[in-house]
Amino acid sequence: MTSLTSLIHSTICWRILKGVWPLPQSFTISSERYPLNPQAFYFAYGKQSAAQEGCSVLDEAFKRYFSLIFPDYISGRFYSEAIFILYALRVSAGQASLKAETVWGALRGLETFSQLVYQEDFGSYFVNKTEIEDFPRFQFRGILLDTSRHYLPVRAILKTLDAMAFSKFNVFHWHIVDDPSFPYQSRTFPDLSAKGAFHPMTHIYTQSDVRRVISYARMRGIRVLPEFDSPGHTQSWGKGQSDLLTPCYRGSTPSGTFGPVNPALPSTYKFMATLFKEVSSVFPDSYIHLGGDEVNFSCWKSNPDVRAFMQKMGFGTDFTKLEAYYMENIVNITTALNKTSIVWQDVFDYHERIPKDTVLHIWKGDPASYEAELSRITKAGYRVLLAAPWYINHISYGQDWQKKKIHIPFTGTEEQKKLVIGGEVCMWGEYVDATNLTPRLWPRASAAAERLWSDEKQTSNVDKAFPRLQDFRCKLLRRGIQAEPLFVGHCKHEYQGV
Amino acid sequence: MTSLTSLIHSTICWRILKGVWPLPQSFTISSERYPLNPQAFYFAYGKQSAAQEGCSVLDEAFKRYFSLIFPDYISGRFYSEAIFILYALRVSAGQASLKAETVWGALRGLETFSQLVYQEDFGSYFVNKTEIEDFPRFQFRGILLDTSRHYLPVRAILKTLDAMAFSKFNVFHWHIVDDPSFPYQSRTFPDLSAKGAFHPMTHIYTQSDVRRVISYARMRGIRVLPEFDSPGHTQSWGKGQSDLLTPCYRGSTPSGTFGPVNPALPSTYKFMATLFKEVSSVFPDSYIHLGGDEVNFSCWKSNPDVRAFMQKMGFGTDFTKLEAYYMENIVNITTALNKTSIVWQDVFDYHERIPKDTVLHIWKGDPASYEAELSRITKAGYRVLLAAPWYINHISYGQDWQKKKIHIPFTGTEEQKKLVIGGEVCMWGEYVDATNLTPRLWPRASAAAERLWSDEKQTSNVDKAFPRLQDFRCKLLRRGIQAEPLFVGHCKHEYQGV
Repeated sequence: MTSLTSLIHSTICWRILKGVWPLPQSFTISSERYPLNPQAFYFAYGKQSAAQEGCSVLDEAFKRYFSLIFPDYISGRFYSEAIFILYALRVSAGQASLKAETVWGALRGLETFSQLVYQEDFGSYFVNKTEIEDFPRFQFRGILLDTSRHYLPVRAILKTLDAMAFSKFNVFHWHIVDDPSFPYQSRTFPDLSAKGAFHPMTHIYTQSDVRRVISYARMRGIRVLPEFDSPGHTQSWGKGQSDLLTPCYRGSTPSGTFGPVNPALPSTYKFMATLFKEVSSVFPDSYIHLGGDEVNFSCWKSNPDVRAFMQKMGFGTDFTKLEAYYMENIVNITTALNKTSIVWQDVFDYHERIPKDTVLHIWKGDPASYEAELSRITKAGYRVLLAAPWYINHISYGQDWQKKKIHIPFTGTEEQKKLVIGGEVCMWGEYVDATNLTPRLWPRASAAAERLWSDEKQTSNVDKAFPRLQDFRCKLLRRGIQAEPLFVGHCKHEYQGV
Repeated sequence: MTSLTSLIHSTICWRILKGVWPLPQSFTISSERYPLNPQAFYFAYGKQSAAQEGCSVLDEAFKRYFSLIFPDYISGRFYSEAIFILYALRVSAGQASLKAETVWGALRGLETFSQLVYQEDFGSYFVNKTEIEDFPRFQFRGILLDTSRHYLPVRAILKTLDAMAFSKFNVFHWHIVDDPSFPYQSRTFPDLSAKGAFHPMTHIYTQSDVRRVISYARMRGIRVLPEFDSPGHTQSWGKGQSDLLTPCYRGSTPSGTFGPVNPALPSTYKFMATLFKEVSSVFPDSYIHLGGDEVNFSCWKSNPDVRAFMQKMGFGTDFTKLEAYYMENIVNITTALNKTSIVWQDVFDYHERIPKDTVLHIWKGDPASYEAELSRITKAGYRVLLAAPWYINHISYGQDWQKKKIHIPFTGTEEQKKLVIGGEVCMWGEYVDATNLTPRLWPRASAAAERLWSDEKQTSNVDKAFPRLQDFRCKLLRRGIQAEPLFVGHCKHEYQGV
C-alpha cells in the first residue's frame, strides 16, 4: 500500500522519445527522419580536417560509437574516418557532418549524434534532420570517487568513466587515499599500501591499474585529477611511513595515537617532495589536488615538539599559521613540478596568502554559505570549483535528482563569474562500494551534468526535464549502466544483469 | 571532504569473525574448533528420523548448503543424508547433529550451521564446538515486493528468495498487480496482462514463471502470498476488463476517467469469483491478500448508478458502507475457496464486522499510531501483521538499518500479544527496480529479520549488533548477494559483478 500519486508522472514519461542529455546550447530537430543502414554507415575524416586516420582518440571513439549507435548490430565492415571543423552537428539526408575545434569537442559531438539515433519497433534505425551547435557552460565538469573508505575494483571505475562520457563529464577526481585505507601502490614508498591498504594484494591500485584508468579516461575525453589529501585525512599513511604523523600526547607522555602529518619535521617535507614527484609523473594531468581540509588541532596542541616549533617560527599559539605554513610548503613542492594545485576551501578560510593560480574547491554548507564563499574567493581573485551542491552520496527518499539540478548561485561581477571554472559531483564512500555505486550515481549525477554543460535558462524547469531524463536513463540501461529508475514506469530494455 | 568519524566503526568491525544472523534463541560457542574436510563431509538422515532420502526439500537443501559451507570446493562426491530430531544444533568433534520437528526447521538449522563454518587464511575450513537451540519469535516473517510500479525480472525475484532464506524470512508477499501495470498473465482473463502490463510479452509473469517462483520459494521454506488489491489500486485492471471500474462523472456526463472497481454491478462479483478461483489454484498457500486500502470515494460519489445502488441498499450517503459491502463479498468469495484472507488495516478502520479469521495488516503511520491500532485490532480479537515500521523503500542517509531494528510496541494483554502473527518488510516500487533492488534491500532487511526471529532482549543493542551484521553482510557478498555496505570498511571477498 502506497499512494495513488504513482501514476501522475508515469503517463508523461513516454512523450519525448528522442532527445539529447545534457541539452545542447542550440538544437533544432525536425520531424523529417532518415533511415540509417548499419551496413552502409561509416565515419570519415574530412579532407581539410587536422585530425586524420591514426588519431587514436577518434579512431577508437568511432568504433565505440558505432556499437552505441547500432546496439544490436553484430558484425559488418567498418570505416574509422570522419568529417571535422568545429563542434557543430548537421544531420541531413544521406550525410551527417560534425565540425569540432578539438578532438575532445568531436567526442562530445559523437555522443550527441549517438543519442539522436533511435530504433523503431521493427528494429530499423532512424535519425531526424537536425542542426546543433554546442559547447559546455563550464570547462570543469567532474565526478569524485572515494576509493579509501571502500575499495572500488578497477572495473567499477572504468564503468563509471563510460557513464561519465555519456553525460559529458570531463574530470575524474580520484580521491584515492584517506584515513581508512591507502590503496595506491607507490613505487617509491611501497609500504604505504603494503601496510595502509585494507589488503596489500586484493585492495590496491598497482601502477598498471592506474595507467589503465588514465588511458581509458583519456580515450573518453576525461582527465584524471588525483587527490593526496594532507595534512589531515592521513591516518592510513602513518601505517607505512613512520615519523610522518604527529604523535598525540596525554599530558607529558605520548598517548599512542597519532594526529595529522607532523609539520615540524624536515623529514616530512622530504617525504612529500619525493611522493609528489612520483605522483606528478604517474598522473600526467596539469592539476593536482592537495586536500588541506578538516585539520584537527588538538593533537598538534598536545605535542611539545610541535609547540616548540611554533615558538621558533613565531606562530605563537595560532595553529592556523602552522597549517598555512605546511600547505604553503606542499603547494610550492607541486608548483616546482609544474602542477596547478587545487585545495579545499578550508585553505583559503584560514590563509589568504596563497599562490594566485591555486584553485579553491568549495564543499561546505548550505546555499547561503557557499554562495557567500563563492563571492569572497572570487573577489580575492582566485579560481573556484563548486562541489557543495552536489554531494550525491547524500540520499533521500523520492525524486531527489531534482535537488542536483540546483541553480548555480552568483551575485558577483562578470570578472568574478569568469573565475568559476566548474563544478563537481562528489560520491563519498562511507556507505558506497561496488555494490551500490552505479545505481546511486546514475542518473542522479546526470542532473548535475546538465547544469554544468547546458544553458541554465533552457534547462531549469524540472517538469520539462523529467521525460528527457527518463528517456536518457533508459539509454543508460541499454548501454549497460545499472542506472536506477526516476519514478514508476519501464524501459523497453530493462536491466537484466542480476 | 567528509568527516573524520569514518574510522570510529571500521576498526570494530573485524572483531567478531564468526556469528549467526539472526541470533539464535540460545547459543553457546566455545573457542575449541574442529577442522572440516570437504572430501569427508556429508549429511546423513538419522535412523529414527521421519524424513529420509527422497524428501526433496532436504535432499535439495543438502546440495545447496554443501556449496554454501564450502564456497571454493569444486567437485567431489556428495552424500545427501543427515541426522535429525528437533531444531537443536550440536557441533562436537567429528559430528554435528541437527534435530528439528519439521523439514522447515531443519532448513533453518542448516542455514545456521552454514554460518558457523569459517575459512582461515590458508583456505581450510573450521567450525567451533557449539550448542544451539533455536526457534522463531514470530511465525510470519515476510518481505513484500511490488512488481506493478516496476517490473522485476523473474531472476531478480529468485535472487531475493535466496537472500530471504539466508535471513530466515519465510513469506514472500507478492504485490503482483496495482494501478501502473498488471503483469500477471491470467489463464481465464488473458487481456488483463495483454492490455494492462507495461508490455504484453516482455513485462509479464507467465503461469510457468509463477510456478517457478513458488517451487523455488518452497524449496527454501518460503511461502508465496499473492496480493490482488481491490477495489482501489486497480487502474491497470480496467484496460483489459471493460465495465470493471467505475466510470467517473463530471456533472451529468462521464468524464472518461475511471475510479475504483464498480461495486454496484453483479458482473463485478462474477468476474472476481472467476479470477480468485484461478488465483487460489495457482497460488497453493492458505493465505491470500485482498488489499482493500486507500479507496477514494470521489468517483463513486460522482456516478449516478452507484448513488442509486447506495439508496437501494439503504447505505444512505455513507460510502464506507459501500466499501464494506464490497470487501465482505470478496472475503466471502475467497473463504468459499478455503483461503484465509489478509487485508490492509483500512478494512478494519471502516468496518468492524469482518470474519474473525481475517488477518489485518497494519501499514499506517508513526509508532504512536500503529501501536494504538495494534491494540485496537487485537482487542477486537483479530490477528494482525505489522508492516508499518519496515517500509524499507524509504531510505535516508547514514546507518538507517538501525531504524529497521525497531522495538515491536505492545501494551496489550498476553492474549492480545498472541494475536500478533508477525511482521513484514515492504519494498514498494515507485523508485525501485532490478537496478537497485538488492543493495536497497540487503542487509537493511536483515535488521528487521533479527527482530522477527530472535529474542528482542538479546538483540536490541545496535552497537553490539553492528559487527555481527557487518560480518553477515560479507557472507551475503560471498554468496553472490549484492548487499550494500553498512559503513567504512571492506570484505575479504568484495562484490565483483559490475
